[in-house]
Amino acid sequence: MKFVIQRNRLVQAVNEVTRAISSRTTIPILTGIKITVNDEGVTLTGSDSDISIEAFIPLIENDEILVEVESFGGIVLQANYFSDIVRRLPDDSVELEVTTNYQTNIRSGQASFNLIGLDPAEYPKLPEVTAGKSIQIPISVLKNIVRQTVFAVSAIEVRPVLTGVNWIIKNNILTAVATDSHRLALREIPLATEIDEEYNIVIPGKSLSELNKILDEGTDSIEMVLANNQILFKLKDLLFYSRLLEGSYPDTSRLIPTETKSDLIINAKSFLQAIDRASLLARENRNNVIKLMTLENGQVEVSSNSPEVGNVSEKVFSQSFTGEELKISFNGKYMMDALRAFDGADIQISFSGTMRPFVLRPKDAENPNEILQLITPVRTY
Amino acid sequence: MKFVIQRNRLVQAVNEVTRAISSRTTIPILTGIKITVNDEGVTLTGSDSDISIEAFIPLIENDEILVEVESFGGIVLQANYFSDIVRRLPDDSVELEVTTNYQTNIRSGQASFNLIGLDPAEYPKLPEVTAGKSIQIPISVLKNIVRQTVFAVSAIEVRPVLTGVNWIIKNNILTAVATDSHRLALREIPLATEIDEEYNIVIPGKSLSELNKILDEGTDSIEMVLANNQILFKLKDLLFYSRLLEGSYPDTSRLIPTETKSDLIINAKSFLQAIDRASLLARENRNNVIKLMTLENGQVEVSSNSPEVGNVSEKVFSQSFTGEELKISFNGKYMMDALRAFDGADIQISFSGTMRPFVLRPKDAENPNEILQLITPVRTY
Repeated sequence: MKFVIQRNRLVQAVNEVTRAISSRTTIPILTGIKITVNDEGVTLTGSDSDISIEAFIPLIENDEILVEVESFGGIVLQANYFSDIVRRLPDDSVELEVTTNYQTNIRSGQASFNLIGLDPAEYPKLPEVTAGKSIQIPISVLKNIVRQTVFAVSAIEVRPVLTGVNWIIKNNILTAVATDSHRLALREIPLATEIDEEYNIVIPGKSLSELNKILDEGTDSIEMVLANNQILFKLKDLLFYSRLLEGSYPDTSRLIPTETKSDLIINAKSFLQAIDRASLLARENRNNVIKLMTLENGQVEVSSNSPEVGNVSEKVFSQSFTGEELKISFNGKYMMDALRAFDGADIQISFSGTMRPFVLRPKDAENPNEILQLITPVRTY
Repeated sequence: MKFVIQRNRLVQAVNEVTRAISSRTTIPILTGIKITVNDEGVTLTGSDSDISIEAFIPLIENDEILVEVESFGGIVLQANYFSDIVRRLPDDSVELEVTTNYQTNIRSGQASFNLIGLDPAEYPKLPEVTAGKSIQIPISVLKNIVRQTVFAVSAIEVRPVLTGVNWIIKNNILTAVATDSHRLALREIPLATEIDEEYNIVIPGKSLSELNKILDEGTDSIEMVLANNQILFKLKDLLFYSRLLEGSYPDTSRLIPTETKSDLIINAKSFLQAIDRASLLARENRNNVIKLMTLENGQVEVSSNSPEVGNVSEKVFSQSFTGEELKISFNGKYMMDALRAFDGADIQISFSGTMRPFVLRPKDAENPNEILQLITPVRTY
């Protein structure tokens, strides 16, 4: 293998694939980046066996030569050394050459590195995602769906399926649900693509978080392909594979209360700031407990008490409060996570009693499942 | 104690004094910020008993009212809670009121916090630095002196005096020296103030690093006052006290070689980049060993070898190399620290043999001690 490549394109591809690489892997070769070159271009691969990322650099793009190949081949190089090296190389172009025994020479300007590589044939094969029906979705929409649900996955492995986000595709509607059994985040959007099949999959929360970090905001679309135990997100020159979680996801629809006893209309941004302040003292408590109490004139009071430190209370003006007077306690972090999903818009919080889960939705939402955040209260009053 | 204060000024003062506060202190009250108010203004104090910082907010500044006092007094509040709270308060002004049992009420907008405080009389007294002869020095100069020497202090406490920077003031010249016995950094500048006395003090490296973080770049001067075991840096509305280290600092002047066998003139920036690249593989070694070898035509080669990872070599063009051919090895981190002190200027490196310390100075330096960096080589060749 021998080729010359534009350094900035190599750096970008290395940054992308290293997102999948974990130093804590149990498979030593997965601490490396696989680099292969053929008559189409250079491919870099990184994987922790849950997530695999493949970045491609074509020989020519927009009449500009990105790669000049002298001989085909492949190598696996230690990701931490290789990425530090390519980032600091002095020249705009880099030459990579594999000599004997997987020794790899990296040259740029006056600098010359020799790294001891590994046999690329030893690198695990990527999952085969045969071209099934693919779904197109705008990147900005996908990023929002992920951001508004992924925080609610379970952080503990007691029920592994809850560490993922459940995606259901049915009647051209994508429903994403995450719950750690104390709170639930739900997002529903119509798909532009006609989908005849029905899908019900669980994507690991960590995969979706990493995917969101890689995706740039923009108007482009991304293609999703579903296969056995794998989902593949396809961008131009970038493939992102994630393993799917096994096991059936619980039916969460029955958790969502259908009746309501009190409704609070409030601005998500100003409410978030008040909860954030009340949480400053609440974090001493194990559950970060915040109390909410309705006052007169549509005001609510949020408060928190930490016996050794002190207490805090704040009146917040709502747009309206209707129904039964209310005293309720909840986890402040859950409330802040949920409120952030609404991007500062006005919201409606529907309560059905002090010990019943309550639900946050956009004010005047046409579809009650467009964005739904559910929180189970904490018993204190 | 009861007063109303502009929130942004309070936040600034809190940020300044918390630099001195350590959560690992053995004196519990030092995890707090002392706040006092009198007929001149509000004073905040933070201390870890080595460093103490006092920030002052006057009642009125430039015809603008900063503080409105209702009653004098003082309190000590937990630094972590108090700083989180003031940063997040909703309104531009804050009211602080101490009620019974050191309970302190903090109000801003609709938010109201009660913190349990401590008796300010229990807070340790700040050192008394009686107004001796004070020395004026431009802040930008002081920041450079610190930056160009403090990295060379010893990180280990075997010889405590070496964890500080030795400042000698004599004949209106300030000489700052730091050494960990493997390398040495020296900086010498003439002082504008006439100083009759001679001083020889050792300031903890940590104090100087913290001072540099607080000082803003600018054209203002800072005043330094020396007293028993303390140095006080005085800015408008800010006092920075540091304990001095006891014990006599070694005489380092005899460590600096007077003869030279070879001289390399090279640009500090391009040399730093080459050393940085060579260090990428060297860090696996315990001493981060880099080799330097002279080639023909005024070129030098920097290289490094890490048996399990690989090797790197790079030719660097120098402006000139004169004297004996050279092969020498050194700690790459020490070299990078030293090179950074020259801000990318052209430098002269004077070698007096493979196992003798070598010295970096600005090219064509008029005063050989203006900036001097000394590094002891490592035996490998």
